[in-house]
Amino acid sequence: MLQSIIWSDGVLQLLNQTLLPAKVEYISCRDWQTVAEAIRRLEVRGAPAIGAAAAFGLVLGARELITDKEKFWTGLTEIAAALRKTRPTAVNLFWAIDRMLLVASRYDQGTDPAIVVAALEDEAKAIAAEDKEVNKKISLYGAQLFTRDEYAVLTHCNAGALATVAFGTALGVIRQAWSEGKIKRVFVDETRPLLQGARLTAWELAQENIPVTLITDNMAGWVMKKGMVQAVLVGADRIARNGDVANKIGTYSVAVLAKEHGIPFFVAAPVSTFDFTIASGADIPIEERSADEVSSFGGIRVAPDGIDIFNPAFDVTPNEYITAIITEYGVLRPPYDQAIADLANSEKIKIRR
Amino acid sequence: MLQSIIWSDGVLQLLNQTLLPAKVEYISCRDWQTVAEAIRRLEVRGAPAIGAAAAFGLVLGARELITDKEKFWTGLTEIAAALRKTRPTAVNLFWAIDRMLLVASRYDQGTDPAIVVAALEDEAKAIAAEDKEVNKKISLYGAQLFTRDEYAVLTHCNAGALATVAFGTALGVIRQAWSEGKIKRVFVDETRPLLQGARLTAWELAQENIPVTLITDNMAGWVMKKGMVQAVLVGADRIARNGDVANKIGTYSVAVLAKEHGIPFFVAAPVSTFDFTIASGADIPIEERSADEVSSFGGIRVAPDGIDIFNPAFDVTPNEYITAIITEYGVLRPPYDQAIADLANSEKIKIRR
Repeated sequence: MLQSIIWSDGVLQLLNQTLLPAKVEYISCRDWQTVAEAIRRLEVRGAPAIGAAAAFGLVLGARELITDKEKFWTGLTEIAAALRKTRPTAVNLFWAIDRMLLVASRYDQGTDPAIVVAALEDEAKAIAAEDKEVNKKISLYGAQLFTRDEYAVLTHCNAGALATVAFGTALGVIRQAWSEGKIKRVFVDETRPLLQGARLTAWELAQENIPVTLITDNMAGWVMKKGMVQAVLVGADRIARNGDVANKIGTYSVAVLAKEHGIPFFVAAPVSTFDFTIASGADIPIEERSADEVSSFGGIRVAPDGIDIFNPAFDVTPNEYITAIITEYGVLRPPYDQAIADLANSEKIKIRR
Repeated sequence: MLQSIIWSDGVLQLLNQTLLPAKVEYISCRDWQTVAEAIRRLEVRGAPAIGAAAAFGLVLGARELITDKEKFWTGLTEIAAALRKTRPTAVNLFWAIDRMLLVASRYDQGTDPAIVVAALEDEAKAIAAEDKEVNKKISLYGAQLFTRDEYAVLTHCNAGALATVAFGTALGVIRQAWSEGKIKRVFVDETRPLLQGARLTAWELAQENIPVTLITDNMAGWVMKKGMVQAVLVGADRIARNGDVANKIGTYSVAVLAKEHGIPFFVAAPVSTFDFTIASGADIPIEERSADEVSSFGGIRVAPDGIDIFNPAFDVTPNEYITAIITEYGVLRPPYDQAIADLANSEKIKIRR
């Protein structure tokens, strides 16, 4: 099974997703700055993967401070703050760092830093291990939503093994449903500007011989109109208390198109993607990235000079477009306010345990 | 004013649109095969431009037959058939060839071919000259639809000077409305796979200092959701009797999104783009192009091997999504059956004249 994140002998190996599918190459991260840079450059991307990578990044940073008891705690806080600044939208990043700092906070400031670092390493490993388990549960719950034969689904961006520690959220569901014979084919939006659909999702699925049809993003409506897909499945970068979902730019357009064609629109995401502190998607910060991502391709300039470029990396799909949200605790249905409040409560119980 | 098609000294100069915006380079066509190849390769593209290019292509072909009275008429028919096969969707191609053959048919088969060729050249020149006039009329009618200040519009693909002989249909309206101060900015979908929006539309508008914001196709919904555009304006490749519109792939998605956001969706097209012989869009043949257009970019492969690719070059937007169709005879409104029947009648009168 493909692993985008491997922690081995105190080194974090990140599969460099910017080089796929041409090259399978891991980046060896021996310090937190390399991890931060990898997140910023999208060498590791996907909400759950970013969270796990940041957790290990904090371990690497803490390890550098191990000999300096004086600076350990302020240093840890600074590194956590720096990791938080790498990307703004995916809440898993903040969730993972919060969880790591919570572990550290259980120790007295006089504790030998080596003990705290060991505890942080255990917690980062736990985050990674749990992510795999969570994705398996999401996959099993999600596959139950598919009952008909001859199902083809459409997905946008990459919510697969590459976006997580393993297996994937939306692609986890797709893998599971396919293995159960419920899905026969996956339509993949190429997902401009960075082509995560073409480069990552199509590649992941092709490796497992799941039939893929790649399309450009602007073909999704026509594919639906022609009756070629019966469901849409995507991941999420942040989900608000009311069920509004931030995900890769273009997700909102796909959701509107799905609604127009009476096609169910499913979101698959772990509880770590829910932001229980915000009431709606209006509060989700949307990252805007460099104009070069749109104006150039593979180093070739495709747009003229002297024009403006708008490059939001995400959009927000309002809850009314979402048929169901698949989590490791089960499938949430509207009204999402209530369903997510219940989830928050069960999650609180789990954390306290 | 930019000219994509220039007839000069018996040579057809076609602006090679596949090289824009990096290079402004004309292809000198001295035989009909070069014209046919240019149409097939999208070196000249855009429904009205294809029509005019094919008309001149037929002149070039006829000229080659000028010394062989025996073969002139069969040769002309064969060349016309070959030109018809270059691309299937834009009806202007067939319209222009029909119009040329109609002129030829007025001559007795015993006529000196030189006389027929001269008449064909006059007709091709008339088609080109009329296209400019037609676009000016479309632009003036269309600009009247914009009454508010601070209007930003969104367009898809390229229905500009490059897609026509000059001035453009949808971009003609945009140019006119901008010059009247009714439009302040144009959002341009990059229009994958061949990026006619990024490469051609953004370039055309930037040359005239019309403010452009380039977006990827999958951002259109989010731009509408955020209230950044107040209208959509596109061209057309073929319009059925009921008002269904075939246009560049992705147009249908934009139309659905416009409807969802209560934004008017306007189509600008000359009468030569109407196919009065077909009842609905279901009868419009949709060209499917090479998978390479989607899987590679600038020679760089971006998708893995071993996957399927769907690459329809056009889609059909049903009439119910279309707020109005702007023609050189005025603005058509629903019900389109009636409006287009009236147009067909007035057009017939014109042709008989």
